[in-house]
Amino acid sequence: MTDQHKTVNIDIRQDLFGANEDAAALNATLFKEHGITVIDIMGSVGTGKTQLIETLCETLREQYKILMIAGDLATNIDADRVGSHDVDTVQINTGTACHLDARMIRVALNDIDLSKYDLIFIENVGNLICPAGYSLGADMKIVVVSVTEGPYMIRKHPLTIKRADMIVINKIDLAEVLEFDVDALVKDIREVDANLSVHKVSSKTGMGIPELIKTLGL
Amino acid sequence: MTDQHKTVNIDIRQDLFGANEDAAALNATLFKEHGITVIDIMGSVGTGKTQLIETLCETLREQYKILMIAGDLATNIDADRVGSHDVDTVQINTGTACHLDARMIRVALNDIDLSKYDLIFIENVGNLICPAGYSLGADMKIVVVSVTEGPYMIRKHPLTIKRADMIVINKIDLAEVLEFDVDALVKDIREVDANLSVHKVSSKTGMGIPELIKTLGL
Repeated sequence: MTDQHKTVNIDIRQDLFGANEDAAALNATLFKEHGITVIDIMGSVGTGKTQLIETLCETLREQYKILMIAGDLATNIDADRVGSHDVDTVQINTGTACHLDARMIRVALNDIDLSKYDLIFIENVGNLICPAGYSLGADMKIVVVSVTEGPYMIRKHPLTIKRADMIVINKIDLAEVLEFDVDALVKDIREVDANLSVHKVSSKTGMGIPELIKTLGL
Repeated sequence: MTDQHKTVNIDIRQDLFGANEDAAALNATLFKEHGITVIDIMGSVGTGKTQLIETLCETLREQYKILMIAGDLATNIDADRVGSHDVDTVQINTGTACHLDARMIRVALNDIDLSKYDLIFIENVGNLICPAGYSLGADMKIVVVSVTEGPYMIRKHPLTIKRADMIVINKIDLAEVLEFDVDALVKDIREVDANLSVHKVSSKTGMGIPELIKTLGL
């Protein structure tokens, strides 16, 4: 290393994770008892998580009784958008917290009649870092990235990718106009986890959505 | 409120902020003693923070002795990019931490000869939420948003906007092709803070950069 470029590694450990894992396990048991499939969808702001959920709800709402749980610092924008598709929604406003955790989900579930649902989409707070560390008790964690986030978003977030069960590359219809190299992005994902399921979709045009639904087993 | 849409408010308070403010005040004193202007630049991943700093460095490096401090979870990508412009850089790898804090800056400054510099750009971890809560001791906090983050990024992050001294709307050259309504975004900013300085720039084309530098007093 030259004198010009220095690297300082700061190791931060949080004791909070243990308590969260316990709550997540309780949530998972509750979901299983009710036969509900639960999908946790995370990703940075503006990657199109809400539009993806809207598109999935449009396709699946005849077949499944769907609940959408939306995490957001301050607004109800996402829950209102999904709610407009005639899907029940619960909004969790986290204030300053940068992620949902399993206890927030438990609080939110307190006055929900789970027997009414068989599929829950949880839209996490828009943030590519923090939600990765907190299990919610979902069956699957999908990370949504999009071609608008620049070429380094995978390499900069290896832990988020490692903890994901599936990566959805959204806004694929914009790749050409943004001169975005999707193959390079997929290669970056493969370097973190060679076997991770990767889907290229456009929630706007519907491209790739049937294949995504098939892989989800829905 | 209808039965269909519920809102749960979860209030999370962190005792960490007090200690951070103390460290930030010490950093500010140190910077002032050395006559250094320090600018903290935050924003979500892919908004073009690094390219903005590269463009500013290209313009200002003859006039100022510049140090760039880069915060990133795991990589040196940003520091390497800015370093290629013949600017000294320090990389802070935060591991899992979603923001820089004032103590990390103190650790990083431990073996830096501050008498060599009169301008420091700090590029915070790519995240529109967490860095807003942590002062670093900088003179100014700039929030970079871009036209690729969707229409709701201001309304969803009111605290981040309130705590900013300036908003830079980047990638303005892409607004048309993305059908992004910049005026609506500026209106959202004005609703949070009517007097906040807002600059529309393209770090790629250089548009708006001279005006930004002038407003920064550089």
